[in-house]
Amino acid sequence: MTSDRTAPQRAVTAAVAGVGTSLFGKQPDLHPSQLVWRAVDEALRDAGVAPADLDAVYVGTVFGAPGVAQRALHAMGITSMPIITVENACASGTTALHEAVTAVELGRFHTVLAVGVEKMTDQFAGAIHPESTDIEGRTGLALPSLYAMAATRYQALYGVTDEDLASVAVKNHAHAVHNDRAQYRTPHTVEEVLASRMVADPLTLMQCCPIADGAAAAVVRPHRSGTEEVVVRSSVLRSGGLWDQRCAHVWGYELIRDTATAAFDLAGVGPTDLDVVECHDAFTIGEIVTTEAIGLAPEGQGAGLLRSGHTALGGPQPVNPSGGLLSRGHPLGATGLAQTAEITWQLRGEAGGRQVDGARLGLVETMGGGVAGVDGNACVMVVLERTTGVRA
Amino acid sequence: MTSDRTAPQRAVTAAVAGVGTSLFGKQPDLHPSQLVWRAVDEALRDAGVAPADLDAVYVGTVFGAPGVAQRALHAMGITSMPIITVENACASGTTALHEAVTAVELGRFHTVLAVGVEKMTDQFAGAIHPESTDIEGRTGLALPSLYAMAATRYQALYGVTDEDLASVAVKNHAHAVHNDRAQYRTPHTVEEVLASRMVADPLTLMQCCPIADGAAAAVVRPHRSGTEEVVVRSSVLRSGGLWDQRCAHVWGYELIRDTATAAFDLAGVGPTDLDVVECHDAFTIGEIVTTEAIGLAPEGQGAGLLRSGHTALGGPQPVNPSGGLLSRGHPLGATGLAQTAEITWQLRGEAGGRQVDGARLGLVETMGGGVAGVDGNACVMVVLERTTGVRA
Repeated sequence: MTSDRTAPQRAVTAAVAGVGTSLFGKQPDLHPSQLVWRAVDEALRDAGVAPADLDAVYVGTVFGAPGVAQRALHAMGITSMPIITVENACASGTTALHEAVTAVELGRFHTVLAVGVEKMTDQFAGAIHPESTDIEGRTGLALPSLYAMAATRYQALYGVTDEDLASVAVKNHAHAVHNDRAQYRTPHTVEEVLASRMVADPLTLMQCCPIADGAAAAVVRPHRSGTEEVVVRSSVLRSGGLWDQRCAHVWGYELIRDTATAAFDLAGVGPTDLDVVECHDAFTIGEIVTTEAIGLAPEGQGAGLLRSGHTALGGPQPVNPSGGLLSRGHPLGATGLAQTAEITWQLRGEAGGRQVDGARLGLVETMGGGVAGVDGNACVMVVLERTTGVRA
Repeated sequence: MTSDRTAPQRAVTAAVAGVGTSLFGKQPDLHPSQLVWRAVDEALRDAGVAPADLDAVYVGTVFGAPGVAQRALHAMGITSMPIITVENACASGTTALHEAVTAVELGRFHTVLAVGVEKMTDQFAGAIHPESTDIEGRTGLALPSLYAMAATRYQALYGVTDEDLASVAVKNHAHAVHNDRAQYRTPHTVEEVLASRMVADPLTLMQCCPIADGAAAAVVRPHRSGTEEVVVRSSVLRSGGLWDQRCAHVWGYELIRDTATAAFDLAGVGPTDLDVVECHDAFTIGEIVTTEAIGLAPEGQGAGLLRSGHTALGGPQPVNPSGGLLSRGHPLGATGLAQTAEITWQLRGEAGGRQVDGARLGLVETMGGGVAGVDGNACVMVVLERTTGVRA
């Protein structure tokens, strides 16, 4: 259920009936429509839904041109229904999912498509540049810098080493070897990660997610009681509050923690119940902070979790089996729905070489943006579960 | 009520409790936050609502940087609640209003802020340029061209003259003389409108809405039964279908007509019941087609409506008393909420020199985008009414 309703009961449990993605990576020769077509076509087929069965579409994109997905959807015959594009920085795709889930739960719509798309190679050669008129643009506080400062403070507080940070990238690159839609599928050592070009000390290039093109989609409809399928146990969207820099937490921690608490409370589960997690590893420090903030490890012990293999494939709670943003790639608006696709495949046992055995409960977590002094534009978390029952 | 729900009853009637706008016009020296602050501060004061009373925010913008309004909202203490930016081309602000209204009607949120903002002078010297990789960009089918072709066909079908088209601009400029927030406040003659530079034959410069900077906002909460206030009788959002160019209607007509039919049916009123209308006069032909499509005049007789003074201030059904997009200006994401502010002021009797006497029922209509072959990205219509009861 979603958290933002006044009404205490949800009328409907939402199911993720189908998912799809394009390939992720630098695909400068593809039109954004071609990315959307691949993701949406797969999601519709997977759900057994025709364009005419849809009641509404939510689109997630950050830098897409106005109507970027509508153009592609119209060409598929997805017209004459409400189509609304949403933006929430890196959490735009997850915001589209959240709005779709909420609409189904409240009975506003029956069958809703959520689709995310980003064509970044047209617009960015290197890092996303902040607006020149904003504080971040004037001072160089682009996102790599904000994450780097969080990393530096975190290292000072908890004795985390550069090698620990690099280990996140090593783990997620190792996972992506098994994901044939990922942008990078080559394993790397800690030494290689640390030897890559410095972007914002201590974050080297391979600790920063790459510029990517891609699309991903999910079909949401009411759960069919008694069938075995992937349902939404909770979906929570929060925007950040003031980041009080006097507090002990690095930037972003409190927003993620509070969103997680709400998502787990609504779902009636705890972090130890999770079998698999896709989270926002835009930068290596992000995954360490996030695993703590969602409660997989006590504060300051996220690196220990990593060292023990707890969050690697084969460990008890794999994090980012898809390769994450670091290796699958991070086409902003598509990411949240690619995470959703991964968790859905995992819960269905369809994840191939990266399958988490017996996964039944999974978490999607996406962090979006953040500006100077504010703890993130948005954090969205969705708890997904495979129900028992007859296979749909 | 909104049309897009499965559930037949609305739980709640939504009220527009407060509205606000910035000045509209070319304001290159202002930061987008300064525009947002002015609009939101006025809307909150008007509603008697503090930032902490809000449960959620929907933001409408088309070309705004990611988080453009969030930055401003955070600085006002509007944080730690869901903030979702929506885009639907020129109907982005009205889409934000529609999502806010629907959320209140469904009990998802209690008190919701809708805010629209656009800072266009930073980005556009002349017309908005289409994407170079899209059909429109390759063929020159920018929006002025699409509207010009509609105008040409319409003139051929119905004997409408260049003078008729120009009369829309003359009427709306005359209205804006009374609007001290409008971009252009100088009256113009038909001859002056026709003598202005040709943009896309037959549309001269003064028949095209100007590039503008601005913001507008509305606070939506449940109607307080028994009080006199502005309530939402219906809110409908539709995306365009295939434009079948073999049909008798010009581009956009069918989407507007179908949206109007749904909005009137839900509200239980008809077009003759309207006292005042704010509609999408991005180009002069737009207002003529729209007045027909919403049923103020039979098909092909919109120009006659204009010639008779029916839609001018002092006539029975004034259209665009604010000056409309042509004279108030068209900062894309702000427009729908500026229309909402105007209708709200009119229904409260607070519109000063442009007041429509005794206005009780009003319509907001916004048309968004459209690409080759599709009848518009979105059309949003909101029927507003002043209730009887004790003044709130």
